[in-house]
Amino acid sequence: MGDVAQRLAEIVGDQHLLTGEAVTEDYAGDEALVGEPVKPRYVVKPATTDEVAAVLTTATEHRIPVTARGSGSGLSAAARPHPDGILVSFERMNAILEIDTTNHVAVVQPGATLSELDERTAESGLGYTVYPGEMSASVGGNVGTNAGGMRAVKYGVTRNNVLGLQAVLATGEVIRTGGKIVKTSTGYDLTQLVIGSEGTLALATEITVRLHPRLTHGATVLAPFSDLDQVMAAVPAIVSSGLAPHILEYIDALTMAAITYTAQLSLGIPDKVRDASQAYLVVGLENRETDRLDDDVQALGELLSGLGATDVYVLEGGSARKLIEAREKAFWTAKSAGADDVIDVVVPRAAMPEFLSRAREIAAKTESGVVGCGHAGDGNVHLGIFQKDPAKRASLLHDIFAVGMELGGAISGEHGIGRAKKEHWLELEDPAKVELMKRIKTAFDPAGILNPGVLFD
Amino acid sequence: MGDVAQRLAEIVGDQHLLTGEAVTEDYAGDEALVGEPVKPRYVVKPATTDEVAAVLTTATEHRIPVTARGSGSGLSAAARPHPDGILVSFERMNAILEIDTTNHVAVVQPGATLSELDERTAESGLGYTVYPGEMSASVGGNVGTNAGGMRAVKYGVTRNNVLGLQAVLATGEVIRTGGKIVKTSTGYDLTQLVIGSEGTLALATEITVRLHPRLTHGATVLAPFSDLDQVMAAVPAIVSSGLAPHILEYIDALTMAAITYTAQLSLGIPDKVRDASQAYLVVGLENRETDRLDDDVQALGELLSGLGATDVYVLEGGSARKLIEAREKAFWTAKSAGADDVIDVVVPRAAMPEFLSRAREIAAKTESGVVGCGHAGDGNVHLGIFQKDPAKRASLLHDIFAVGMELGGAISGEHGIGRAKKEHWLELEDPAKVELMKRIKTAFDPAGILNPGVLFD
Repeated sequence: MGDVAQRLAEIVGDQHLLTGEAVTEDYAGDEALVGEPVKPRYVVKPATTDEVAAVLTTATEHRIPVTARGSGSGLSAAARPHPDGILVSFERMNAILEIDTTNHVAVVQPGATLSELDERTAESGLGYTVYPGEMSASVGGNVGTNAGGMRAVKYGVTRNNVLGLQAVLATGEVIRTGGKIVKTSTGYDLTQLVIGSEGTLALATEITVRLHPRLTHGATVLAPFSDLDQVMAAVPAIVSSGLAPHILEYIDALTMAAITYTAQLSLGIPDKVRDASQAYLVVGLENRETDRLDDDVQALGELLSGLGATDVYVLEGGSARKLIEAREKAFWTAKSAGADDVIDVVVPRAAMPEFLSRAREIAAKTESGVVGCGHAGDGNVHLGIFQKDPAKRASLLHDIFAVGMELGGAISGEHGIGRAKKEHWLELEDPAKVELMKRIKTAFDPAGILNPGVLFD
Repeated sequence: MGDVAQRLAEIVGDQHLLTGEAVTEDYAGDEALVGEPVKPRYVVKPATTDEVAAVLTTATEHRIPVTARGSGSGLSAAARPHPDGILVSFERMNAILEIDTTNHVAVVQPGATLSELDERTAESGLGYTVYPGEMSASVGGNVGTNAGGMRAVKYGVTRNNVLGLQAVLATGEVIRTGGKIVKTSTGYDLTQLVIGSEGTLALATEITVRLHPRLTHGATVLAPFSDLDQVMAAVPAIVSSGLAPHILEYIDALTMAAITYTAQLSLGIPDKVRDASQAYLVVGLENRETDRLDDDVQALGELLSGLGATDVYVLEGGSARKLIEAREKAFWTAKSAGADDVIDVVVPRAAMPEFLSRAREIAAKTESGVVGCGHAGDGNVHLGIFQKDPAKRASLLHDIFAVGMELGGAISGEHGIGRAKKEHWLELEDPAKVELMKRIKTAFDPAGILNPGVLFD
């Protein structure tokens, strides 16, 4: 046992250090479709912030790469470790430390899952509103990627719902940022800087999230459209209406067929309507009063019809839940259908039609398949990419990302860059910004031990 | 004319460079009550981003301090220039470049005022929801301090409503961050880092802000309480209710007397009720439908009575507007009443009663006056400080800030640290965080030209 292994064992305890054969495939990556899993040299499972700090101090001292892992449900390989590195798995730091019903916050450890947090907050009538579609995801992982999801159109993404962090710097220093406060103008906002940094700046060991009152009455409305452009044009009208949907998704016809088939879900849409549909809007409304909800559903139906929907279905509870679940599992459906990559470009909402049409043109040129769905209210388009040839796929992705950026968007809305999209990002991003970000990275992590190879080379 | 003056004149044009006697008192500071105004050596009034970039390149080359100025309505002396420095006044870069009604954003130059933006967006039925109470404030200045205001309880602060920036780095490099997109997970969030950095990291030259649908029906409810603790305890109950107020302010009895006297405003509160009141809650509700608004006002009234309000007044339009205006002018009232400082500590909402009671104890010990009002929904307490003796005042402020931090809060919720609170902040803040922020500052501004003396020494 080397010096480093011995030191790590001292810190976390023998049974919480894995090396050699004990490092299983589980620790070799996340759910990214591209690249190969990589086993780290060490897996440590700290139980406290102090242990994390001691691990990072050791790593900086010995210049050993460190990758943090929550549930491993990420899609950009930001949790794929370095072969010579330490993987810090937060599986033991998964406590929900506090549900504070007066300040409307919860304080959790990074390994706590969304599903645990949802369960624990339920009885208080409050809830955490970030639903990236994978309830086994950890809150810490969500902080890493600035996770979004279906409810972001109303409640915002992780960035808008995390108020404070306890975080360990690469040097082992422990800082607290923000807190149970909704605003501050007291120095630079380190909370916001760490969110979305994919484990390259600091490791969060305690996270204070905002909770919202749960609105108990909800309805899900499904509207088929015979024309994708009409779907996209409907989105800003719905946002302007003041109906404040908490879900506003589009699903293209192929994706709808795939996810309903996989979920064995019949929505009761007549064949004739279905066959004529290019895409669907799924709109979720919620209210604290049933009569207001009913009125809003009525108003939404009229609005959708006026915007060109060929029909409007108010889904009954069971179907609604199943459809939302099926949409949440769209990634798995794409994966099992043989998708070679899944991307999540974000563009200004109004640019979605042009983005989609240009993405399809680009795909057609390389004989690739591009199908998808997305958080329409956010301009966040999730596309399954079907192209086996790596060179063709790389060129296709490059061109699609470039179009997204040309339209004023960004390569990723919520999945992150990680290792998976790094090459494209570094090629397309303004070098002045990349250099600035590298200098910020050095300000946090002078020895460059935190997730090297993620974001930057 | 020195080399630098000549170069600056070449950049912005002779008539847009002021030096010597031409530099008026207007450019010597902002509205901070502490410290003395300082005239800068040079005032430049650039018209374009390129001119700003050339000014900063020159400043970095000659190691000349640069301070940015919007409308000069700040309260922390972050716009008070360096005597040997350049003041970049954005008075000519005040255009509203675009109102985009499909993406629900506006793109403005930093010198545009909130009042201009409000006027220009009105016809679209959309609006910018940050109302720090001073409509002559510039959007650029608001970005500098992460301005908040009364509607933050519903719509968030500047940070939550700015989606993108064009910004000039100290080296003269021009970058674009974010955009007309509501989310991104593509590298570090530079937008969020620049917001609240008080001119020390970069100068924003174009700002993309989020617009919200204007809800046309509004009501203002005033509730006197005989006990300040009851006011504070009522706040979380109102937030939990789901009534989603867009205004949730507390005003203590002295402040209410002062602001209504100054505004010559009679609220029709019987003397008996007024004399027994320690503090008031002002709650604003808004809706897109009048009948829902009426129902909500009714529900709010019942809720407030149940929470101990001695009475509930639904103010008619004129009084409501005047009361809100009077509250917005509370700073000026405090100033003309002889306040020696105005501070804006933010604490967890539930900690407000303890914070206020301890602040009063501290004040009593030094025979100082402490009166105030605040954004109760945000835990943001604005206190006018009455203590002429500088040493006593410094000690009082130190102790009040320390209590705020001990309770999990921060020194400033929305005014910023600037020069005015720097000494206290550097004394009370975790040195590891201050050092990290300094390294971030260096990553942006290696020569240290951007607003030296603000935030850091």
